[in-house]
Amino acid sequence: MTETTTHPSAASLLDRHRARLDAAVAACASREYYSAFDESPSPRVYGETAAAEGKAAFEARLGTAFPLETPGAAGTVATERSPYGFDLGVSYPRAVDVDALMAAARAGIRPWRDAGPDGRTGVCLEILDRLHARIFELAGAVQHTSGQAFVMAFQAGGAHALDRALEALAYAWTEMTRTPATAIWEKPGRGGPLRMEKTFTVVPRGVALVIGCNTFPTWNSWPGLFASLVTGNPVVVKPHPAAVLPLAITVQVCREVLADAGFDPDLVTLAAEEPDDHLAAALAVRPEVRLVDFTGGNAFGDWLEANARQAVVFTEKAGVNTVVVDSTSDFAAMCQNLAFSFALYSGQMCTAPQNVYVPAAGVATEDGVRSPAEVGAGIGAALDRLLGDDARAVELLGGIVNEPVVRRLEAAGRRGAVLVASRTVRHPTYDDATVRTPTIVGLTAADADVYESECFGPVAYLIETAGTDESVALFRDTVQRHGAMTAAVYSTSPEVVDQVREAALDAGVALSENLLGGVFVNQSAAFSDFHGTGANPAANAAYTDGAYVASRFRVVQSRRHI
Amino acid sequence: MTETTTHPSAASLLDRHRARLDAAVAACASREYYSAFDESPSPRVYGETAAAEGKAAFEARLGTAFPLETPGAAGTVATERSPYGFDLGVSYPRAVDVDALMAAARAGIRPWRDAGPDGRTGVCLEILDRLHARIFELAGAVQHTSGQAFVMAFQAGGAHALDRALEALAYAWTEMTRTPATAIWEKPGRGGPLRMEKTFTVVPRGVALVIGCNTFPTWNSWPGLFASLVTGNPVVVKPHPAAVLPLAITVQVCREVLADAGFDPDLVTLAAEEPDDHLAAALAVRPEVRLVDFTGGNAFGDWLEANARQAVVFTEKAGVNTVVVDSTSDFAAMCQNLAFSFALYSGQMCTAPQNVYVPAAGVATEDGVRSPAEVGAGIGAALDRLLGDDARAVELLGGIVNEPVVRRLEAAGRRGAVLVASRTVRHPTYDDATVRTPTIVGLTAADADVYESECFGPVAYLIETAGTDESVALFRDTVQRHGAMTAAVYSTSPEVVDQVREAALDAGVALSENLLGGVFVNQSAAFSDFHGTGANPAANAAYTDGAYVASRFRVVQSRRHI
Repeated sequence: MTETTTHPSAASLLDRHRARLDAAVAACASREYYSAFDESPSPRVYGETAAAEGKAAFEARLGTAFPLETPGAAGTVATERSPYGFDLGVSYPRAVDVDALMAAARAGIRPWRDAGPDGRTGVCLEILDRLHARIFELAGAVQHTSGQAFVMAFQAGGAHALDRALEALAYAWTEMTRTPATAIWEKPGRGGPLRMEKTFTVVPRGVALVIGCNTFPTWNSWPGLFASLVTGNPVVVKPHPAAVLPLAITVQVCREVLADAGFDPDLVTLAAEEPDDHLAAALAVRPEVRLVDFTGGNAFGDWLEANARQAVVFTEKAGVNTVVVDSTSDFAAMCQNLAFSFALYSGQMCTAPQNVYVPAAGVATEDGVRSPAEVGAGIGAALDRLLGDDARAVELLGGIVNEPVVRRLEAAGRRGAVLVASRTVRHPTYDDATVRTPTIVGLTAADADVYESECFGPVAYLIETAGTDESVALFRDTVQRHGAMTAAVYSTSPEVVDQVREAALDAGVALSENLLGGVFVNQSAAFSDFHGTGANPAANAAYTDGAYVASRFRVVQSRRHI
Repeated sequence: MTETTTHPSAASLLDRHRARLDAAVAACASREYYSAFDESPSPRVYGETAAAEGKAAFEARLGTAFPLETPGAAGTVATERSPYGFDLGVSYPRAVDVDALMAAARAGIRPWRDAGPDGRTGVCLEILDRLHARIFELAGAVQHTSGQAFVMAFQAGGAHALDRALEALAYAWTEMTRTPATAIWEKPGRGGPLRMEKTFTVVPRGVALVIGCNTFPTWNSWPGLFASLVTGNPVVVKPHPAAVLPLAITVQVCREVLADAGFDPDLVTLAAEEPDDHLAAALAVRPEVRLVDFTGGNAFGDWLEANARQAVVFTEKAGVNTVVVDSTSDFAAMCQNLAFSFALYSGQMCTAPQNVYVPAAGVATEDGVRSPAEVGAGIGAALDRLLGDDARAVELLGGIVNEPVVRRLEAAGRRGAVLVASRTVRHPTYDDATVRTPTIVGLTAADADVYESECFGPVAYLIETAGTDESVALFRDTVQRHGAMTAAVYSTSPEVVDQVREAALDAGVALSENLLGGVFVNQSAAFSDFHGTGANPAANAAYTDGAYVASRFRVVQSRRHI
C-alpha cells in the first residue's frame, strides 16, 4: 500500500510547532481566551531593535521592485498610494497569462497532497512563525496601504491576523484528522469475520483563489489562504491593487518556507494587476479554481456567488451594523464606548456600528431620561475627548483609505440632521494624510432609504424610533434583508435584552450586550468570537468554524481484504 | 440570560438513546465496524411474529388513503406501481399550495431551535427507534416501490438505511457540540482582566428540501433528512412519485415523535405530487428553502445546482463506475465477485460497476492468460451459477424498477458484441413482475460514446484496451469528466495497484482492491465507508463527513461583561 510520504523537514516542522497547534485546537473547542502572538509592539516583548528594523525593512521596499516571481507574469504594476499621502512605488509582477499561472499552481499538488495533514500543517505553522518574525515590516505595509494607525496595523494586521490564521489551521487540522489515515474493519459473520484494511486520504479540491481587500489585507485574507493551503490546495492570492505589499510579503514567506521544506513554491502565487485588469473575475471562473475567498463589496461578492459556480465561494461583504439603545446604567460609559467604536480606524471596519436606534421619547439612564439629541450630544462629547488632540486622534482614526470614503462622508450630512460634524485632522507627521473624525447624522425610522444601506466610513446614523419595540423590529428586518457583521444592545431591562437576543438569533448576527468598558462591538477575538455568522446577507461564512474548512478538501478511500 | 429550553421529553429521549449515539460517534471516528440495527430479518433477531405483522401492515396500506396531513394539500395522488406487477393504490395528500406548506414548515422553528442539539438529537434518535420497530413494513414498502428483493429491501432499505441515518445524526451532533453553549473569556490586562460570558446558539438555515429517488427511497433520503432536521431545520420530503410509501411512513413516524415530544409535527411534511406537477423544481427555488438534498439523474441534479442558488445543494447524481482488470490470483473468485455485483438488484444501484477495462492481450491468472472473451465467458458462467434457478435468481435480481430500464437493456446489445445475453426470469410468486438478468456487452476503447455515459440498469461493458496503462488512463479521464460512485481494481502487481490507487485519488473516487470474497464493490458500510466523495461529477457530497453536516446550521453568539 501507499505510505503517506512526508518530507522530513515538513514532519519536523509540526514537531517544532506542536505545542502552539495543540493550544489553538484546545482554544477553538473551549472558546476561552487564547493568543499565540503578542499584540503589544513594546520593546519589552519584541526587543529593542525590532521596531526600527521593521520600519527600515518597510521603507527599503519603497520605490523598488518586490522580489517575487509570478508564473505567466509580464511587466510590472505599481498601484499603491499610502492614505498618509505618498506613493509607495513598489512594483510587482503583473499577472497576465492565466493559463500559465494555473498550470504552475497545479504543478506541485501531488507532493503537497502526499505530505498529509501533519506535513502541511507543519509547513503552514512555520510560515506563521516567519511572518511573525516580520511583524513590524508587515505593520508598516498594512499601515501604508489600509491607512490604519501603526498600533492597529501591528495588532489587527499582524498579531490578530496571525491568531486568525492559526485558528483556521487548527480547525482545518482537526477536520482533516477526524478521519484516521487507516482503519481495520472487521464484520462478524458465520464462519469467521470479514476483515478489510481501509486507507483514507485527504485530497484537495483544486486551485484556491483568495481575493484581498484594501482595509484589512492580511486579517481578512489569511484565514482563507491558510485554510485552503493546509488542506492541500494551491493558492493564488489576488490582492487589492491598493493593498498589495502586505500580501506580497505573505506570498514571499509562503514560497520561502515551501521551497525550504522541499515543495514547489508555486503552490502560493501573487497575482497583482492594474485596477482595470479585472483579474479576479477572470480567475474566479476558471475551471481549475475550486475555492474562492473574497472580502469586499456586495456587487462583486454577489457576482462571484452567482458566477463562480464551479467553486465553493466564501464571501464577506457589507452590511448595516446596528445598535439598539433602550436604557443604560452608565450614560457616559455608553457614549464613550460607542464613540470609540465609531472613531477606531474612522469606522472603516466591516464590524463598525452604523445604525443606532433610539426611542424618540428618550433613553432611561442613571440620571434620568436623555433625548435622542442628548444621546447624540453625549457621543459627540465623547468623540471630542477622544479626538480633541490631533496627535492622539490620528493614532485612533488612522487615515481615510480612499477618495470614495471622503465623498460619502461629505455627502452624508445632506441625508439628515448633522448631530456631530466631521472635522479634518492635521496629521503631525504626514502633511498629506487624509484624516477625518466621524460624523453622526440624525434620522427617523422613515429614512429607510438612507440607513438600509452601508455607508462605509466615519458615518453613523442616530435613528429615532417610536420606541424600543420598533427599534428591535427595524433591527431584525434590516439585518435579515441587508445583513450585518455585528450588533449591540444597551438596556438595563433583562426582558429587552432577551428580546434583542431573540431578534439577533432570528437575524443571524452576533450580539454584544451593554459594552461599557474595554471591549468594543467592532472587535472580535480569535479562538473565541466568530467573525460573521454566515446566517445573514453580509457574509456566507464565519471565521472560523467547521463549515469554513470542511468543504476545502475531500476524503478518498481505498479498501482491501487482509 | 436565555436558558436553552429543552422540552422534558426531548431531553429524556437523549438519555434513553445515549449509548447508541456514543457508539455511533466513536465508530465515525475510528471507522471500524459498527452497526446499531441488525441486518438479519431472522425471527431469532426480530421475533417470531415480526415478519408476518410487518407484511400485514404493508398489505393493509394497499388501496387505502395513507393517514397523513400535508399543509396546503388539495385532493390526493396515487402514483405507485410495484415492479412486481401490481398497483399499490395508496393515496396521499397532493401538495399544491406551496405558500401554505412553507408557512407551516416554518411555524415550529423556534421551539425546535430552542430544544438545542441534545434535545433535537434525542427526538431524532427516538424517530430511528420507532422506524426500526416498523422495519418489516418499511421493507415491504421499499420492495414494492423500488423492486428490490425482500431481503435487500430489509437490509438496504431498513437496517442499513437506519445506520446511515444514525451516522448522519452522529456527525451532526459532533459538529453542533464542538462549540460550547457558553464560555467564559478572560483576557489578561493591566489593572485586571477583561471578563466576558459568551453564549453560542446553533441556529437553523431555513427549510430543508429532501428529494427522494425511486430505487433507494429511504437509504438515499434519510441521511439528508436527519442531518437537516437534527440541526434545527424543518424538512419537506418530496418523494419520487413511484416510491412514496417508504417516505410517507418515515414522515408519519417523524410527525408522531415530534408531536409526542411537544413540537410542531409540521416540522416534517410529505409533499406528494402527480409526476407532471414539477413540485421539486417549484420547491427548490423558494426563498425559504436553504438546504436541498437530491438523489437522481444528472439533468435535474445539475439544474438544482445551477438554479437553487439560495440554498446549499447536496446532490448524488450518476456516474460510470469502473473496474480495471489487470491480473488476478483467483480467476473464478473474481468472476464470481463481479457477477454478483452486476446481478445485485439488477445493477440498479448507483454503486454498481459498469465499465470493465481488460487488456486486449488478456489477463494473467493463476491458470495462465485469459482473453477478454474468456473473461466475459467467466463472468457469464458465474452469472449462470448465481441466476440459473429462477426462484433463487429473483431474490438477488429483484424487479426492474421501471420501463426505461427495460428499454435501455434491450437497446444495449446494439452498441457492441453481446458477450452475455440478458434473460427474462419468471417470478415464482408475482406473475407480472419484470425480472431480467444482466447483459455484458463487449466494446473497445474507441467506443467512448457508449461507455462514457451511465447506462443505468443490468448492463455492463467489457472494454478491450491496449493494456493496463490505457485502462488506467481511461479510468482516470472518464471519472474526472463523468464521475463515479465506485471503482475497483484486480491486479496481483503492487505497482499496478499503486498506479490505480493514484488514479483514484486524482479522479476522486473510492477504490476497492481485489475483492474476491464476501465484500462487493457496490456495497458501502455505514460508519466506515464513505458513500461518494464529492470530488468528482457523480456527487457533490459524501455520506457522511463533516462537510455533509457543517453547512446545515450556523452558530450565533452573544457576549456580555461579567
